[in-house]
Amino acid sequence: MSTSFDQKLFEDELSLRFEKTQLDNKDPVYEAAVYSLFSGGKRLRPAMLEMAYQLFTDADVDVCRPFQYAIEMIHSYSLIHDDLPAMDNDELRRGKACCHIAFGEATAILAGDLLLNAAYEIMTEACLAAGDKRSLSAMKVIASAAGGRGMILGQSRDLAFEKRYSVTAAEIEEMQELKTSALIRAAFLAGGILGACNADEEDLLYEFGSKLGLAFQIRDDLLDTIATTANLGKSTGKDERDNKKTYVTVLGIDRAGQRLAELSNDAKVILMKLEELAGVDTSKLRLLTDKLETRRM
Amino acid sequence: MSTSFDQKLFEDELSLRFEKTQLDNKDPVYEAAVYSLFSGGKRLRPAMLEMAYQLFTDADVDVCRPFQYAIEMIHSYSLIHDDLPAMDNDELRRGKACCHIAFGEATAILAGDLLLNAAYEIMTEACLAAGDKRSLSAMKVIASAAGGRGMILGQSRDLAFEKRYSVTAAEIEEMQELKTSALIRAAFLAGGILGACNADEEDLLYEFGSKLGLAFQIRDDLLDTIATTANLGKSTGKDERDNKKTYVTVLGIDRAGQRLAELSNDAKVILMKLEELAGVDTSKLRLLTDKLETRRM
Repeated sequence: MSTSFDQKLFEDELSLRFEKTQLDNKDPVYEAAVYSLFSGGKRLRPAMLEMAYQLFTDADVDVCRPFQYAIEMIHSYSLIHDDLPAMDNDELRRGKACCHIAFGEATAILAGDLLLNAAYEIMTEACLAAGDKRSLSAMKVIASAAGGRGMILGQSRDLAFEKRYSVTAAEIEEMQELKTSALIRAAFLAGGILGACNADEEDLLYEFGSKLGLAFQIRDDLLDTIATTANLGKSTGKDERDNKKTYVTVLGIDRAGQRLAELSNDAKVILMKLEELAGVDTSKLRLLTDKLETRRM
Repeated sequence: MSTSFDQKLFEDELSLRFEKTQLDNKDPVYEAAVYSLFSGGKRLRPAMLEMAYQLFTDADVDVCRPFQYAIEMIHSYSLIHDDLPAMDNDELRRGKACCHIAFGEATAILAGDLLLNAAYEIMTEACLAAGDKRSLSAMKVIASAAGGRGMILGQSRDLAFEKRYSVTAAEIEEMQELKTSALIRAAFLAGGILGACNADEEDLLYEFGSKLGLAFQIRDDLLDTIATTANLGKSTGKDERDNKKTYVTVLGIDRAGQRLAELSNDAKVILMKLEELAGVDTSKLRLLTDKLETRRM
């Protein structure tokens, strides 16, 4: 997504680091976790974390790496569990069979658990090694976004909405704020904190992440409607069939598109404020915002 | 379990602290997590952590509380996920319907996820507040025990054994070492570390926890065979029916009982070494070892 984020390098390092969290690398749960973690994800959240980090420091990415690994593992665990038959009952993810299709349900549940726990193992070790408050603050931001004040509550709302006849646009936005924006926002916040941004800069990163997260989700919902399964690598048209409540199923394609444009614009206004306040170059984040608004997968 | 561990007080404090990890306390996932977390557990791991802590310090339990909460939440999450239809397919736990029976499978999966994540939210905040290396080391010990080098790998082995015709006693012990001992050992280790024990004392706590954890599990397996469902509050005779591999199903009641006595004795020998080395009073831990060896539920 960024010109600076080296995805290939990141993948290799992630693989090496994740191996250390396991005693038995032949165990099916570990294999299932690896299968899902390395299934062609865009590594969007780690890239976001790194971009935010590099706004405020020239220091090596070694400092932010463990948090990049962790946030991708948390994202990956959430996809595995969300795809389960009892939840969204999906079969295809990133063009491959979902974890529970490939490895069975029990192994998939445990693989999700493993990834969530491994995220914290890695962050805890990073905090011990760094011995500073910033690392712990970054872990706190990520932990809070992943939990009952964030992603998990969002997934619960999403499931509840499926059973309701109608849901308002405001309710959709609040749900997606939790389900998707929370972790995306945490990526920017954690990156900023690790890069030693100040409280005002943190506030702007928070606002930017909120807008961009929502925009990302609306684009996702639009793609579910307008893209083909082959292009997207996951089942499309599923939201409608499953009675999923999204911006698109509730407000239609046109109004969802308008809201996407509005949010992307808001996000770029916040970037200008950040440039003024911090004197940093936010061009990569502006480019990212544009790319996410028009992405085809 | 201990004369000093105030379970009622602990329950009240746990409830208050857990509430803070949630944005919406009416959400079914939160309700399901509360249902499972407060379902009459013995709070054995928090009691163990506190006992180990108090071996080495007279300081207030405030310091070890967050880690007691966390370890109980991790235990509770593991029970919710282990009971799921895709895993052990249980219906009864502590005399009540299992979480997925009471709240549905999707909510139960998320409630487990919530508890695991909340454990880390609470420990991270405790580490931030304490600002010392000991808290982070305690979190690391717990995180490692819960993950792919501990509990999750143990559960994976346990599931794999069900499909095998025969399993050796050594394999059973290795599996239970991971599935049950790892977290019990982590309780003692984390307590000791928070109480500022030294490396030699840590080693003895590690050994003691390993023995006691295995002894606890064998007693659990014996109770599955000899107790009634009404007494135990969970389905009995299930191990045999499910082709579960335990000390009892593999070696029979008598040899399992012998191994239990042997492990309990080993544990008490280690306590004597700890008394000699550290000059601490381990009588509560000796009492606990005796109680666990002969417990009826």
